[in-house]
Amino acid sequence: MSKLKGNLVVGQSGGPTVVINQSLIGIIKEALQYEEIGDIYGAKNGVVGILNEEFIDLRRETLKTLSLIAQTPSSALGSCRYKPKKEDCEEIFRIFEKYDVHYFFYIGGNDSAESANIINEIARAQNYELRIFHVPKTVDNDLVITDHCPGYGSAARYVALSFIGNTLDNHSLPGIKVDVCMGRHAGWLTAASAIGKKYEDDGPHLIYIPERPVTLQKILDDIENVYTKYDRELVAISEGVKDANTGEELAKVLAKDIEGDAFGNIQLSGTGALGDFLVSEIKNNLGEKLNKKLRVRADTLGYNQRCFPTIVSEIDAKESFMVGQAAVKYAMLGNIDGSVAINRIGEGKDYAVEIFLGKLKDVAAATKRLPADFINSSSNGVTEAFVKYAKPLIGKLPKIERFQENIVKKR
Amino acid sequence: MSKLKGNLVVGQSGGPTVVINQSLIGIIKEALQYEEIGDIYGAKNGVVGILNEEFIDLRRETLKTLSLIAQTPSSALGSCRYKPKKEDCEEIFRIFEKYDVHYFFYIGGNDSAESANIINEIARAQNYELRIFHVPKTVDNDLVITDHCPGYGSAARYVALSFIGNTLDNHSLPGIKVDVCMGRHAGWLTAASAIGKKYEDDGPHLIYIPERPVTLQKILDDIENVYTKYDRELVAISEGVKDANTGEELAKVLAKDIEGDAFGNIQLSGTGALGDFLVSEIKNNLGEKLNKKLRVRADTLGYNQRCFPTIVSEIDAKESFMVGQAAVKYAMLGNIDGSVAINRIGEGKDYAVEIFLGKLKDVAAATKRLPADFINSSSNGVTEAFVKYAKPLIGKLPKIERFQENIVKKR
Repeated sequence: MSKLKGNLVVGQSGGPTVVINQSLIGIIKEALQYEEIGDIYGAKNGVVGILNEEFIDLRRETLKTLSLIAQTPSSALGSCRYKPKKEDCEEIFRIFEKYDVHYFFYIGGNDSAESANIINEIARAQNYELRIFHVPKTVDNDLVITDHCPGYGSAARYVALSFIGNTLDNHSLPGIKVDVCMGRHAGWLTAASAIGKKYEDDGPHLIYIPERPVTLQKILDDIENVYTKYDRELVAISEGVKDANTGEELAKVLAKDIEGDAFGNIQLSGTGALGDFLVSEIKNNLGEKLNKKLRVRADTLGYNQRCFPTIVSEIDAKESFMVGQAAVKYAMLGNIDGSVAINRIGEGKDYAVEIFLGKLKDVAAATKRLPADFINSSSNGVTEAFVKYAKPLIGKLPKIERFQENIVKKR
Repeated sequence: MSKLKGNLVVGQSGGPTVVINQSLIGIIKEALQYEEIGDIYGAKNGVVGILNEEFIDLRRETLKTLSLIAQTPSSALGSCRYKPKKEDCEEIFRIFEKYDVHYFFYIGGNDSAESANIINEIARAQNYELRIFHVPKTVDNDLVITDHCPGYGSAARYVALSFIGNTLDNHSLPGIKVDVCMGRHAGWLTAASAIGKKYEDDGPHLIYIPERPVTLQKILDDIENVYTKYDRELVAISEGVKDANTGEELAKVLAKDIEGDAFGNIQLSGTGALGDFLVSEIKNNLGEKLNKKLRVRADTLGYNQRCFPTIVSEIDAKESFMVGQAAVKYAMLGNIDGSVAINRIGEGKDYAVEIFLGKLKDVAAATKRLPADFINSSSNGVTEAFVKYAKPLIGKLPKIERFQENIVKKR
């Protein structure tokens, strides 16, 4: 076993999750076990903090603080949406040299894996031993190789609970309700809307995801069919759902004021535009066709999906800690690098996982979408196979009940 | 003690809460104790079900079902937004005569108290003994007489947790975030955004409520001040906040397609319009002034505020059950009627309440707004007095922690 002496840097990147600090604390607590690890630096705001040499000394934090931070949502070190350019990565490498950093752990999505990969290649070319690990997190669940992503289970739990609540609300006060979920390129979170369904007529009755481009007309036809059957309905739709005619995001077609982030992505979260647009289309087109005034509402579930305190899947929290811890264990094994991943080895009540190591370049910039067998044949819902996959990840759901409804004979 | 033999009707009205079924089950379980109560009818969808003579036989439900329904969010009997006209109330009275109903419990807001009051007056004029009780519920907390409304504590807990999460998120990825809360006429739910603040620089940094009309310019000036100080900020705003110039709702000015409900109310929930409008104003005006591209987002917390499963204040659940139970106890005391209310008799850790009976006509159609001493002098925040009032109602909040942040000396 190679004993590489050096300092450690850990950073967090991209959109936070409610369990991302579990991974951070998993890394710190494991790192504290090894003599060869010197200083433990937390980079403020991910690579931005590294480039600015803004580090905090994590060895000076108390164990009590560490334990409380593990349970605190969002990135305790601060985050960034900055994707370093080649020059930035070279600069990061120089800074690592200057601070005698030989261990680097970057908690984030596929962009973070890509950054880690570039820095790694520079280090290799310079014959500088840098043990660099990508620790996966994303509520979007769209990283490849891993069975699922730390952060997804808790966010999916939030979505599942939202839809349990919304279908009950919709049952109490009937109408057409549209709920817009996070998911730019993949429908994992939106699909989670189906996990809590108990009764045959529970919503969501329709689910639209980026994997299946759709026309507005098809959505309106589907909505009419469901409404005709139940006199109420609940629709789940991903913010990133595509228009089948143009290939563009439905939301984009509407947004007059498109704002891109540093990754060149369009803003789809933090706006109610898609929901409001659909409400207006449903009211106008369907209302006219059915010749009645429809009660139509939309909610955009928004940032609460990724930051709502207390809605944490226990399994997700535990696994998030484990992947952080495992990254450090791998780092101590020798001159290796990679992206920590989860392999599922048991299903249902026997759900269990093992951790393994994937290649940085395989995770970098790739997106895992819902496989075909998780999507129904009408492209407007998910299959039992998806529910079976996702259920163990979100934890136990509350029991929901209805009256038997023995109707009193009219007098 | 008067022994009035007769059947019982219970109904639920208006927007659901996560604990409204506690009140319903409180009524049913208490009613099961008294011999003089004959059939126990659940009216489907409130007064609409009474008018259609759609009753379910609640005596045929199992105790297990009742217990599970108590914990199920939203109105298990179904709800309505229909406010009965005078003729409807006369019809309801005739139906009560026909079904030998002498006990009527209506769970709802001030409109429900008003309906109960009208039906009551008709019964009195006919010398028909009808023991009629309004059982309060509303997430809006805007009923008079009572210290607070069943349903508010849980919804306020949801809002408080949302803002704890959102300020952490905003701390991780700085920008300007606007969160729109429910509250058409009163700012109780929006004010709850402040309850979970721990650190001086935690959001919400600004809170706008219907009690204090405001101009867009004042909002933009406030936002600029906070942003200049913290480089990030979180704003809470009620959906019903008024424009100080016109007296109209800010949201209304924007909504092209205003839809009123049966009470003549304008739709403010179920749309992201207010938030999106503010984002656009902030980006354009403030971005230009500060000469930088601002990251601005808005979320509208939406129906989850009133229906999200598991986010329940234990005290709220308990009190909701109590008011239902108390209504039946009052009904058994004699030929009385009224609106059940809560009086607070202990503060802080010694928080305690007692139940009392208010007059139907006093609760009918009245709205309780935030008193002046709960609102700060700048009209953009709440006071410690409000936090002291609201804190016991929402239950224990999770512990949030930050790093000490010992900065590493630059090399």
